[in-house]
Amino acid sequence: MNLFRNFKSVTKTCYGRGSFGKLDEILQPHRFQNDGFMVFVVDDYFEDKADFVKRIPELEGDEVHFISVLKEPTTELIDRLRDDILKRRGLPAGIVGIGGGSVMDIAKATALMFTNEGSSVQYQGLNLIKKPGIYHCGVPTISGTGAEVSMTAVLTGPVKKLGLKCDWTVFDQIVLDPDLIASVPRDQWFYTGMDTYIHSVEAITGTKKNTFAEAYSEKSLAMCREVFLKLDRSDVKSDEKLMVASYMGGLSLTYSEVGVCHALSYGLGKVLEIHHCIANCIAFDKLEDVYGDYVQEFKGMVKHLKVNIPQGLAKDWSEETISAMAEVAYNLPHMWDHAFGPDWQKVLDRERIKGWYRRMFGLTWRN
Amino acid sequence: MNLFRNFKSVTKTCYGRGSFGKLDEILQPHRFQNDGFMVFVVDDYFEDKADFVKRIPELEGDEVHFISVLKEPTTELIDRLRDDILKRRGLPAGIVGIGGGSVMDIAKATALMFTNEGSSVQYQGLNLIKKPGIYHCGVPTISGTGAEVSMTAVLTGPVKKLGLKCDWTVFDQIVLDPDLIASVPRDQWFYTGMDTYIHSVEAITGTKKNTFAEAYSEKSLAMCREVFLKLDRSDVKSDEKLMVASYMGGLSLTYSEVGVCHALSYGLGKVLEIHHCIANCIAFDKLEDVYGDYVQEFKGMVKHLKVNIPQGLAKDWSEETISAMAEVAYNLPHMWDHAFGPDWQKVLDRERIKGWYRRMFGLTWRN
Repeated sequence: MNLFRNFKSVTKTCYGRGSFGKLDEILQPHRFQNDGFMVFVVDDYFEDKADFVKRIPELEGDEVHFISVLKEPTTELIDRLRDDILKRRGLPAGIVGIGGGSVMDIAKATALMFTNEGSSVQYQGLNLIKKPGIYHCGVPTISGTGAEVSMTAVLTGPVKKLGLKCDWTVFDQIVLDPDLIASVPRDQWFYTGMDTYIHSVEAITGTKKNTFAEAYSEKSLAMCREVFLKLDRSDVKSDEKLMVASYMGGLSLTYSEVGVCHALSYGLGKVLEIHHCIANCIAFDKLEDVYGDYVQEFKGMVKHLKVNIPQGLAKDWSEETISAMAEVAYNLPHMWDHAFGPDWQKVLDRERIKGWYRRMFGLTWRN
Repeated sequence: MNLFRNFKSVTKTCYGRGSFGKLDEILQPHRFQNDGFMVFVVDDYFEDKADFVKRIPELEGDEVHFISVLKEPTTELIDRLRDDILKRRGLPAGIVGIGGGSVMDIAKATALMFTNEGSSVQYQGLNLIKKPGIYHCGVPTISGTGAEVSMTAVLTGPVKKLGLKCDWTVFDQIVLDPDLIASVPRDQWFYTGMDTYIHSVEAITGTKKNTFAEAYSEKSLAMCREVFLKLDRSDVKSDEKLMVASYMGGLSLTYSEVGVCHALSYGLGKVLEIHHCIANCIAFDKLEDVYGDYVQEFKGMVKHLKVNIPQGLAKDWSEETISAMAEVAYNLPHMWDHAFGPDWQKVLDRERIKGWYRRMFGLTWRN
């Protein structure tokens, strides 16, 4: 069953070592829109990295906001950021996100909310946004989420964890500089890289994929294998390939969907605030009955790299916690439909989902 | 040596069997621009295919132009088409190209020339176009050239065979329907498919590639191998994969360049009016000293599929003809720079180029 989709691409893409140094030049033609200033939202990991901060092309009148992404972005954060800037300064010419998937999502969502009234809560879903946002540019400093190319900005709201999803969400510009991901801490590098591995697996194994999605999934998986099984991380190709794997993994979802792992991961994220990429790893580790050899391959990468995947979490969970997570996961029908086909309700109920969560009790490999 | 490029993507892409049936819906929001009519430029191969013509979403006031592509598109053709439509009808809302690489290039070039004054001759080159063109949409009916994603519209002018190349050349929309390429005659299917094979080889072997280009080249080459060595053409995946291979092969040039084969092919095209894709095959067949195992693989495909690559052409060429072609090829420094590096003039002169053309005398395999 193929999907009919007419997907919007990122307007302009600049890839290559050193391209962060071109950001000033890239932004220049876009600086004169609206009230003529740029907003940079930057992962606060960089706040004390003076050498990095110096490289942000902040001109007079621009604003740099360092933002903590310990918690994933909330609708409240977006509304507050938008209201604050609009009130103090007016409408920016554009917004530039410098960071990981959370920062990408903050930049995308805020760009839209600058021009769409009310709270972002009311726009969580597909095509609910009414007007194009302001110019928005993404500069990833960690690779794997695919947020740099996706048409969604995932937000945690009071009720739902769900994206603002429409053509206007897609970035006007992305700057993919492999130099920027060189200093990512090792665990984070792996967990986030596994996001593209896992959603490429989900994309290629479900019912809604087509040949376009398969091609991107296959290439992204092949590059993940090189990065996480063959190359040393210090190899010049390692970061370069990971950045392309993330980009292609993101594009694999253009004509497919995520599946069981992301549904479980959303439950872990919404109820326990476990970060998306590590939540994916925790869940994928237990999904051999669904993803078979891919889970074996994942475990092989974990072992090869001696990375720690948290184990035994479920022993601290009450039945209420497990039920709450199962409820979040169950209410993602498009993921189940993709994973198991339109009759998914015949093979899946809340009990099966709870069973997967309970498995997160078991120990497999750890450091 | 990496290139700094900030490349513009096709704005919207619709891929999948049956997507041609969505063209009406896709064009709808764009019909009200300018003087409110759509122009369809269609390969005249389809003129007597009533079932196909019926499916073109021509509304009242629209124009359908069937165009012969026996000759590759000239600046004169573009200027004449533009002048005729502007004079009779005014400025179209958009232009839709339905056909192969030549028709894609006609649609892209004419879209630009509707809004840029004077002859298209004066815009042959990089970034010479002054204003964005009108809305333009490409619907390939044969796969391999990558013209559906490229930022160039190659035109043969009185002096140069050279593209109108700028961000605005890139399509606003492409519709990639594998059903449309099912009826392509076998030889044409192979020659055109080899365009993506050959430029992927050129992209991956030269000096200007980066990891992004390599990823696209590698995947495009892998898909070509499946289509031309493993799958039967009647296999449902064959056309689907070829269409993605063409798309990805086109994108492999985003961060690389074509090389020796395309330079020689341009000479054959400009001087002898040999069509681009077959000219590539004629040249590539003799380039084992440059492209080694890839040429062996190409010959293997030719043999496996029992396709005819014209041989012995050079025995009818005068020295003047060979010199004229060598002159055209020599004057493509960006291709030589990519193929042999910045000191290419140390390893290449007009005599070496003439030598390659003279080799086109020799017989290798043929039906």
